[in-house]
Amino acid sequence: MSHNLLKGKRGIIFGALDENSIAWKTALRVHEEGGTFVLTNAPVAMRMGQINELAEQTGSQIIPADATSIEDIENLIEKSMEILGGKIDFVLHSIGMSINLRKGNHYTSQNYDWTQKGTDVSATSFHKVMQTLYQKDAMNEWGSIVALTYMAAQRVFPDYNDMADNKAYLESIARSFGYFFGRDKKVRVNTISQSPTPTTAGSGVKGFDGFISYAEKMSPLGNATALDCANYTITLFSDLTKKVTLQNLYHDGGFSNMGVSDAVMETFTRE
Amino acid sequence: MSHNLLKGKRGIIFGALDENSIAWKTALRVHEEGGTFVLTNAPVAMRMGQINELAEQTGSQIIPADATSIEDIENLIEKSMEILGGKIDFVLHSIGMSINLRKGNHYTSQNYDWTQKGTDVSATSFHKVMQTLYQKDAMNEWGSIVALTYMAAQRVFPDYNDMADNKAYLESIARSFGYFFGRDKKVRVNTISQSPTPTTAGSGVKGFDGFISYAEKMSPLGNATALDCANYTITLFSDLTKKVTLQNLYHDGGFSNMGVSDAVMETFTRE
Amino acid sequence: MSHNLLKGKRGIIFGALDENSIAWKTALRVHEEGGTFVLTNAPVAMRMGQINELAEQTGSQIIPADATSIEDIENLIEKSMEILGGKIDFVLHSIGMSINLRKGNHYTSQNYDWTQKGTDVSATSFHKVMQTLYQKDAMNEWGSIVALTYMAAQRVFPDYNDMADNKAYLESIARSFGYFFGRDKKVRVNTISQSPTPTTAGSGVKGFDGFISYAEKMSPLGNATALDCANYTITLFSDLTKKVTLQNLYHDGGFSNMGVSDAVMETFTRE
Amino acid sequence: MSHNLLKGKRGIIFGALDENSIAWKTALRVHEEGGTFVLTNAPVAMRMGQINELAEQTGSQIIPADATSIEDIENLIEKSMEILGGKIDFVLHSIGMSINLRKGNHYTSQNYDWTQKGTDVSATSFHKVMQTLYQKDAMNEWGSIVALTYMAAQRVFPDYNDMADNKAYLESIARSFGYFFGRDKKVRVNTISQSPTPTTAGSGVKGFDGFISYAEKMSPLGNATALDCANYTITLFSDLTKKVTLQNLYHDGGFSNMGVSDAVMETFTRE
Repeated sequence: MSHNLLKGKRGIIFGALDENSIAWKTALRVHEEGGTFVLTNAPVAMRMGQINELAEQTGSQIIPADATSIEDIENLIEKSMEILGGKIDFVLHSIGMSINLRKGNHYTSQNYDWTQKGTDVSATSFHKVMQTLYQKDAMNEWGSIVALTYMAAQRVFPDYNDMADNKAYLESIARSFGYFFGRDKKVRVNTISQSPTPTTAGSGVKGFDGFISYAEKMSPLGNATALDCANYTITLFSDLTKKVTLQNLYHDGGFSNMGVSDAVMETFTRE
Repeated sequence: MSHNLLKGKRGIIFGALDENSIAWKTALRVHEEGGTFVLTNAPVAMRMGQINELAEQTGSQIIPADATSIEDIENLIEKSMEILGGKIDFVLHSIGMSINLRKGNHYTSQNYDWTQKGTDVSATSFHKVMQTLYQKDAMNEWGSIVALTYMAAQRVFPDYNDMADNKAYLESIARSFGYFFGRDKKVRVNTISQSPTPTTAGSGVKGFDGFISYAEKMSPLGNATALDCANYTITLFSDLTKKVTLQNLYHDGGFSNMGVSDAVMETFTRE
Repeated sequence: MSHNLLKGKRGIIFGALDENSIAWKTALRVHEEGGTFVLTNAPVAMRMGQINELAEQTGSQIIPADATSIEDIENLIEKSMEILGGKIDFVLHSIGMSINLRKGNHYTSQNYDWTQKGTDVSATSFHKVMQTLYQKDAMNEWGSIVALTYMAAQRVFPDYNDMADNKAYLESIARSFGYFFGRDKKVRVNTISQSPTPTTAGSGVKGFDGFISYAEKMSPLGNATALDCANYTITLFSDLTKKVTLQNLYHDGGFSNMGVSDAVMETFTRE
Repeated sequence: MSHNLLKGKRGIIFGALDENSIAWKTALRVHEEGGTFVLTNAPVAMRMGQINELAEQTGSQIIPADATSIEDIENLIEKSMEILGGKIDFVLHSIGMSINLRKGNHYTSQNYDWTQKGTDVSATSFHKVMQTLYQKDAMNEWGSIVALTYMAAQRVFPDYNDMADNKAYLESIARSFGYFFGRDKKVRVNTISQSPTPTTAGSGVKGFDGFISYAEKMSPLGNATALDCANYTITLFSDLTKKVTLQNLYHDGGFSNMGVSDAVMETFTRE
């Protein structure tokens, strides 16, 4: 179902771990739409994942990079422009990690070294990527940068732990840097606030299955899948959304504007 | 630059007055993307406009309808399905009118008959259109309904008068009806909150030129034009945004998330 | 527990029906805090209520007024200033009514005459009251106007029917008029978005008890009661909040910023 | 003009540097309202400030504490309870610092060690204070925790640099921790989003005077002063706002809900 929406566009896609990843689905869809790209992930994540398979399917090259390392990011961007044959048109940042969550530390009992590490990986990395792109003047005009986020940045989801605060920080970076990137380079920066998605990363969150079901019942159109998100991201990379910037865009079947649904009330009040 | 994004899709477009209209540009772009549609406007607006020209350009038929009249809307929807050969996939509501504003009544000195008439035309009409579509089961699954709005619904723009309140009411209707349309028919409902746009309708607002220039300087990517808006609307009508619903989507070059820009401060503090 | 926060202040309180009313509780608390006021309600509501009792308890006079009638509002404001001996310092608008809801008309099957009547009573009445106060220059500087609202203005609560849209309209009027009232008269205008409250009016909403329990479990501090709301309103009438204006203030034990609570998830996933 | 609103309440006030500080004004007002408290600040800030004077005026003791050090915070909280004779009822967090901003590093050219240090001081410190209070069970039921923030957390103010992102992070921490503090201890947590205020700290921001004047003209009631903020904070510490939690409360003369004011447009378009 290709529309050639991204024909001739070049990009970098962070965070494709395995076929459940939103970044993985996005890479496939970008490929279908005619875009070319470099895949990247942290060296440690790449060992766990099957990213080579994705690279083959999409005719892409892989450049490992620790997104907290300026040196790695510089190398990634320079090499990407060489490989792709020009400046960058689109970037997907799909990176997040909380050690407190992974190690089972409650939000009220944080290990602050882990908190800081999580913030660095999940949010500051986005600033580092943009700062490097900006300083190298590596983006084409009317390029598009997208980061994935979650509504815990606005509202409390108790099991999301310090990832909530990381996502709030990430979304603020999108706005703050988006202003300068827009003003100086005509590049747009947005975040997509996606439904809870059963990715390999997401499934680490406690009670995730029950929550997926809750979100499904709350959302008039049901949860958005990873493929849905890939499709939506295509529109943000395309030339049809040139004036959308600094936005946090809910892609969630309507969840974000629900107070309560009939389906949730029914389950809630059943005998 | 067609991508055939709307091939096979049928729709109704309200509010094309003349070539400055967002609805006009949208009709042209929908046509380019392979969609077919019926054009409609109030009988009085049609006399003022050049809608016949647009109908010819796009191979469309015109059905006049007063969007405050249930009878007219019923006729419009039935005839549209006949003409287009099936249920409706997309609807654009681009209707707004304030008599208080037009007659120069200050917001603090309203004529409430005019206020009520403006609300009926600008906001309740959207409910009427959706209620009729819903009751007639006239929308295809995964159809998309879009209404145009303005950020005066959230923040004060003193010269926007009672249109601000009408837009807040309209956006609420989008959410409220969007829930039922999503739950029962798998149809999405969103509003686009567009930059101030020099349309024939918009130019009635006092000090509009100065304000356009202010918004241009505030927005990192500049104001979104009518054509930009048409392009954005295409994405919302396409199958790439199936899980976006109940949203109010800012399409404004970033204005909505600016506190102040360097360019505005410079003008503000110049000698 | 009086703190004399409103000593010397004069006001008008709309909407005290019976002892469950938020306006009733507010009147009692204002009285304790040293404020004087006139009570008002629609003639029809007064016949149903026990407002005379409240007037006696608080040494207040009652002036019946249909809040959709400019004539009645003018009379109310003039008489109030006479009775109270000066201009007005505070106003509480606690008025809402949906005929569609009362008559059991579903949101997707509105009677638009009723819709319009509900909007007039629930929202436009607030504009009419403010326009009359403004034109008569009846407010003291640093006076405070408060209207009660509900979060259905932002998010979908399916059983709230067209009151959701009325509340969105009301909140917009607060912002729009608040600008002019602030700029020209140094008067602040805010809305309080209160927890679902078991008032006589609120209990007309379908499934209200189940919903109260849901909101209680969602809110980290539980639902705010009518008395809690009265206390909060006191702060907004006092001189301690002089620079708070154009705001919609959530008073709901935290509900508005919850995505989901542990208590709700527990009930949701119980066997 | 005391109302004894805080009689018998005990608290900790962070961040009083000199008589321009919001925390300084708040300390004076809390004292007037009958509350007792401990003053604290970073050792380095205390050397620069005149906090001893404030301690004398209010009969308070000073406990130096680096708000990034758990050890210091533990000592502060233990000693405070000893000195004040019981658990804590209120806390004011008024701490913020950006080295990038102070050293003149542009937002697009960050030194990430400085970024991290700024986040630690400005935002993580708030988590550390709350985590220590929570783990020591040091707050009384219905206690109130307030942190000061700025609207750069939501919208772009180009010169605010990485403080914008720190404030977004801080506000998220308030929500995230507020849930657990509410659920488990009946303590409320809110942030006040204050007008730009000519404090000694604030005046370090580039072009601050011009911006103060812009905000003054944008706000229908003008900017809120430090004293205004102190008064507002009193209401949040009092028993009148027990059910307000997880909120970010704009205290800004209406700025946050303005699109543009007549006064700004006039300056903007003047010859």
